[in-house]
Amino acid sequence: MRFVDIIEKKADGEALSKEEIRQMIEGYVAGEIPDYQMSAMAMAILQRGMNDEETTELTLAMMHSGDVVDLSSLPGIKLDKHSTGGVGDTTTLVVAPLVAACGGTVAKMSGRGLGHTGGTLDKLEAIPGTSVEIDMERFFSIVKDNGVAVIGQTANLVPADKKLYALRDVTATVRSIPLIASSIMSKKLASGADAIILDVKTGSGAFMRNTDEAFTLAKTMVQIGKLTGRKVRAIVTDMNQPLGMAVGNSLEVKEAVELLSGGISPTDPLYQVCLLLGKHMLMAGNLAADEEKAEQMLKDAIQDGSGLKKLQRMITLQGGDSSYLCMEKIDQMIHVKHMVDICSERDGFVTSMNAEKIGTAAQMLGAGREKKGDAIDPSVGLVMKVRCGNKVQKGDPLCTMYVNDEKRFAEAKQLFLQAIEITEEEKEKTPMIYGVVTEEDV
Amino acid sequence: MRFVDIIEKKADGEALSKEEIRQMIEGYVAGEIPDYQMSAMAMAILQRGMNDEETTELTLAMMHSGDVVDLSSLPGIKLDKHSTGGVGDTTTLVVAPLVAACGGTVAKMSGRGLGHTGGTLDKLEAIPGTSVEIDMERFFSIVKDNGVAVIGQTANLVPADKKLYALRDVTATVRSIPLIASSIMSKKLASGADAIILDVKTGSGAFMRNTDEAFTLAKTMVQIGKLTGRKVRAIVTDMNQPLGMAVGNSLEVKEAVELLSGGISPTDPLYQVCLLLGKHMLMAGNLAADEEKAEQMLKDAIQDGSGLKKLQRMITLQGGDSSYLCMEKIDQMIHVKHMVDICSERDGFVTSMNAEKIGTAAQMLGAGREKKGDAIDPSVGLVMKVRCGNKVQKGDPLCTMYVNDEKRFAEAKQLFLQAIEITEEEKEKTPMIYGVVTEEDV
Repeated sequence: MRFVDIIEKKADGEALSKEEIRQMIEGYVAGEIPDYQMSAMAMAILQRGMNDEETTELTLAMMHSGDVVDLSSLPGIKLDKHSTGGVGDTTTLVVAPLVAACGGTVAKMSGRGLGHTGGTLDKLEAIPGTSVEIDMERFFSIVKDNGVAVIGQTANLVPADKKLYALRDVTATVRSIPLIASSIMSKKLASGADAIILDVKTGSGAFMRNTDEAFTLAKTMVQIGKLTGRKVRAIVTDMNQPLGMAVGNSLEVKEAVELLSGGISPTDPLYQVCLLLGKHMLMAGNLAADEEKAEQMLKDAIQDGSGLKKLQRMITLQGGDSSYLCMEKIDQMIHVKHMVDICSERDGFVTSMNAEKIGTAAQMLGAGREKKGDAIDPSVGLVMKVRCGNKVQKGDPLCTMYVNDEKRFAEAKQLFLQAIEITEEEKEKTPMIYGVVTEEDV
Repeated sequence: MRFVDIIEKKADGEALSKEEIRQMIEGYVAGEIPDYQMSAMAMAILQRGMNDEETTELTLAMMHSGDVVDLSSLPGIKLDKHSTGGVGDTTTLVVAPLVAACGGTVAKMSGRGLGHTGGTLDKLEAIPGTSVEIDMERFFSIVKDNGVAVIGQTANLVPADKKLYALRDVTATVRSIPLIASSIMSKKLASGADAIILDVKTGSGAFMRNTDEAFTLAKTMVQIGKLTGRKVRAIVTDMNQPLGMAVGNSLEVKEAVELLSGGISPTDPLYQVCLLLGKHMLMAGNLAADEEKAEQMLKDAIQDGSGLKKLQRMITLQGGDSSYLCMEKIDQMIHVKHMVDICSERDGFVTSMNAEKIGTAAQMLGAGREKKGDAIDPSVGLVMKVRCGNKVQKGDPLCTMYVNDEKRFAEAKQLFLQAIEITEEEKEKTPMIYGVVTEEDV
């Protein structure tokens, strides 16, 4: 079948067959299908959608476009988590060691930050000496020793996604749920875990701006799991403000260490989301019979310091200096010229935040990348002093900015202030956790 | 505005502004907007549509991408016609001279045939010596002398359409009504006529497979005329069988000459469509007060031979040998090795024809082009012996094929037989003329 006829089929709203989807992805990766045909197809998919079977076939075709990691030599049920990207989301650094401390196996590949969102690899590299470029043999040996390791994706993991994502980015076809779901799930499946817990963010700092779309994406990915024989669950959580208080690489490592040291309240959003992710990972790994049991195991691993020890040992095994990873010494990891409080210009209630703008402000200070390959400064960023719902007076600090390069400070400050809405009247807060999607829900 | 944001606007179903549409066409023609972005936009337009104002702005932007012909130095209201393409449609060779004989000015640029459809230029070139590559000065002088000339489009007429059409062809975005309407109307407007009568075909041999779509396209183009100050009317006619009996270049010239010589019945479909087109051209040119008057003028021009004289003189002025253009000598223009009757394989009624397949069968014999630039044989083709509704017996000829090159004869014969449906029961015939769309209808 000519590819133009396959495009027409989708343009007419018909479902594509497994063979047509394979022909598309194989042809595109091989350079036989040109970008101008693939972008028309991506737009047709954005407009007409794909059913769960098509999305699953697309996921599998993309997964098989490159290396597929075989984790079967590792013990137990291999557990993974994934977040659709947010601001101040340092959950991996908390949950992965906690789950390992509870007996789980977490052989995880992570990504780097781009735009307003951070990436786990950048946070790990903020810890002096830590390497995320580790070969498979060493990766497996660290996981066998410690139960947890977090490294960068292999270069040839889902090349179809790299090529297709770059095209979607310039053709206004990023926002297609089947394309987002297959992009995420192809990488997760290729990374080899048996069970995957997804955190789908919704709100001003997330890709899914409304909750309905977030649930649709969550259900689509859980369904892909079901159709491919992996255990997949998704939580849908709020990204209408940064998840943690810290936005910036070393600052987020510090917040993770603080949480793992028992220094953060269980009512804190970052704590809550970590607990929810961890509970579902433990249950998916058959390590806890129910939520209550799982919660107690995780809280114990915080209380007795075993979670923090797992993180420290992981960093040691990945070549890093884990001596920084305690509350006494962690500030020595953070080197900035200026710490500047950004203060409220009026009295009132913090009624909303634009998390994307806050992430972008941190990026402007040097914490993130505007484009792939940009250098980042691990120490800079910002630490929030307020949460949505807080009452503030004029002059109260809203955040502290950690600054080395003053060049874009004024711009970052202005953007940050724009991101914080302060009103006279108190408004209803958005919930932190919108729900959980399990295999039974799809 | 970045072009990706303009694509997103259309992908979201929003209307584009005049400036955005201009930026798109100018950027695309200049090579600043790559094919892969333009094809995503074309698919978004196919899926989301365009309102009449957008379609008109797109038409104008495309029109101004190249040369615009100024016909103002010619006398009177300049009249043009256009058909959306069909099989056995030789209306231009009939109507253009008839309208000129009735006092109209027809300075017409035509196209070549492609695929299953024929083109007026190829038919003209079938007459020995005739040139369609004529410079503007000479073109104007022929029209001043004779009231009618038909030449090829200038090379730089609407380059945006050439580039965009080639892209649409390979990205399944041909079937978008705003894109079809702007493609046709940009060329018509750039060709300079004051009044344009469109023949929108519907049926198996037409681009618009159903009548609703044909009327939508007709209304869109009439609306473009209204918004750009041109007089535009459209007729919607049947293409469920070839319009005339002849399919092939010399054969169609012969049928035109026969009609202009009074040898074809007024009940014949080709006669009817020519009469309807001619009536609206005369009324649009203020040459007849009403349909009745216009009809009489056209019939008189057939009766007294003045229409045929206009065609003969046009051919003489365009360098051709017009002595062939009479019933006595026209067969000398047709040189074929074999004339083969294709006969019915069963008794019954001819209940439907696939006009596209019939056109393709003629193309296989050498009457048309598979791709641009292919050579054609002016003499070959086929002449139908039946119409839809006719009763036939096994062995009755359905058509006569005019063959020079036997290579693809068997294939052409098979395709032709596939195209003719013969059933025991008589079925209701489709009408020849579905309606007329005037400025009052939009």
